[in-house]
Amino acid sequence: MSPAGNPGEGEFGLIRRHFASGYPRSRDTWLGIGDDAAVIIPPAGMTLVQSLDTQVADVHFPASAPAWLIAQRALRCAASDLAAMGASPQGFYLGLTLPHNQPEWMSGFASGLRAAAHECGLALLGGDTTRGPVCVISVMVQGWLPLDSSTNEPGVQGLFRHTANASDDIWVSGCIGMGALALPIVLNDPACSEGLAGHYYFPQPRLALGVGLRGIASAAMDISDGLLQDAGHIARASALDLTIHTEQVPTASTDLGSSAWQTCLTGGDDYELLFCAPDSQREAIAAIARDCMVTCTRIGVCSKPAAAEPRVLAQLNGQPLDLSKQGYQHF
Amino acid sequence: MSPAGNPGEGEFGLIRRHFASGYPRSRDTWLGIGDDAAVIIPPAGMTLVQSLDTQVADVHFPASAPAWLIAQRALRCAASDLAAMGASPQGFYLGLTLPHNQPEWMSGFASGLRAAAHECGLALLGGDTTRGPVCVISVMVQGWLPLDSSTNEPGVQGLFRHTANASDDIWVSGCIGMGALALPIVLNDPACSEGLAGHYYFPQPRLALGVGLRGIASAAMDISDGLLQDAGHIARASALDLTIHTEQVPTASTDLGSSAWQTCLTGGDDYELLFCAPDSQREAIAAIARDCMVTCTRIGVCSKPAAAEPRVLAQLNGQPLDLSKQGYQHF
Repeated sequence: MSPAGNPGEGEFGLIRRHFASGYPRSRDTWLGIGDDAAVIIPPAGMTLVQSLDTQVADVHFPASAPAWLIAQRALRCAASDLAAMGASPQGFYLGLTLPHNQPEWMSGFASGLRAAAHECGLALLGGDTTRGPVCVISVMVQGWLPLDSSTNEPGVQGLFRHTANASDDIWVSGCIGMGALALPIVLNDPACSEGLAGHYYFPQPRLALGVGLRGIASAAMDISDGLLQDAGHIARASALDLTIHTEQVPTASTDLGSSAWQTCLTGGDDYELLFCAPDSQREAIAAIARDCMVTCTRIGVCSKPAAAEPRVLAQLNGQPLDLSKQGYQHF
Repeated sequence: MSPAGNPGEGEFGLIRRHFASGYPRSRDTWLGIGDDAAVIIPPAGMTLVQSLDTQVADVHFPASAPAWLIAQRALRCAASDLAAMGASPQGFYLGLTLPHNQPEWMSGFASGLRAAAHECGLALLGGDTTRGPVCVISVMVQGWLPLDSSTNEPGVQGLFRHTANASDDIWVSGCIGMGALALPIVLNDPACSEGLAGHYYFPQPRLALGVGLRGIASAAMDISDGLLQDAGHIARASALDLTIHTEQVPTASTDLGSSAWQTCLTGGDDYELLFCAPDSQREAIAAIARDCMVTCTRIGVCSKPAAAEPRVLAQLNGQPLDLSKQGYQHF
């Protein structure tokens, strides 16, 4: 709206220096950064999977955290949505709003972004950098899922929320609650990224597991707002009750019933996969989990809804579990 | 990071109410809002064109402007990048950061967004709403361009910046400087959207013209940061000098040489197309312009660069034009 002060190299130099090279290459990218838009050639027989994720300083991460950690977390969290769909990662777009033009911050951010991009196999396809009073990071990730040629209607072989079936097992990957227990540590010392705090800044998007579960799992999602709340999404989308045996959930706190243990079940920032599968797939899932070097644990079962509204029925040793806290909602 | 106060309907209710219906439908969308990601089936023989655009309150629009005008402008500006590529619009993702949860603001924003989406032919495919201290709007637009089967290498039939040729004519669509002259009016009264101010809030992405110019124009871009500055992008990308006869540019101020006239040439917010084409295409361009009901005006010519660095040579009645002001840079 008003010409910003521009004592330095300007937007174009900044983009060239930090965002033009060093990122994974994508075979599908016909035209990358530098024109009004990027051009991608979709591989034959593939569908496009896309998700946009926004993180705001001091809402989704500490504003004073080192820039490379902020970038790592932002891209990994966004990539988790591709894992949740079983999609093969392709690339991402970055919307970056910044209150300053500090070369060291930018350079740190770009180094974290490059490392996370390589980890996730995501090419940087484009974006927009703007000045604003607070750091806001929007990441649009995309990937591919195969068309399913076995059906008459155009079908897609992927992982969705609405496709779980009654009597399916319920599974989670990894260990639940690491991110939630790390949060107070990170708030106390935003620069700490070791030990438990590492789970906050370096969530592991389960991309290989997601791809492996295509055709095996009946439904899936990633856990970002808390296991028990997120399970409700599959319950409602699939019109099923999801009974979760909370004592079987692998949690960062193993003190059953404690406040820390409850935080694990309801806190956010896990970025593990919650998925459903028929019991005939138990061995296949164990094999995929071994291949992907991630634990997968059965934690419950799907059933036809007992009441009008599909529900998540959290149980502890066979008894209903009473939780004081629900998961995270932004609004 | 911390559970936001949630006295109302929550994020999911908000998304359902404002973003789930009333937008254009896309035949290509297999799975829309409601899962971890959307799934799009690319039409056969088409490539994907994508651009992300971020606007920040009181940087790119007045924070106190009516929400429906903010939404109109945000989506139209983003869609202009598709016009610049000659792409057929498909859909968009919305990242919306807001300092409040005012139902009237949201409802106004959604009404403007829906109207602009219909105007541009863009389905709403997904997004993310977050709380933050300032309103930030990221819009990711996408569309399709045909693969060009006439070439051995995979080619794309679209409009790019790097493909202009020496002796090509230089053209602009519409009238230049409306947005720049509207800016002081809008800053004085952000709610004013009539007359000249309408050009600020309702820029016309030249989508039909862009599609029509495929195979006709040799290069194109949209003018967002000022005609003379933006022409430099084509000059550098195509390694050509661009001589612009400024007296031939259709400007909102016709007082040649005046400060207002200079503002037209260098101010931003035009969202008209700047394009190049061989002189053999003059009649074809006139016909396309008539079909699209937009004026297209020849304003200059491309040539091999006279110096090492390709340049924009702005002339007024055959003499070099000395401008005190360059276009807009955010950083």
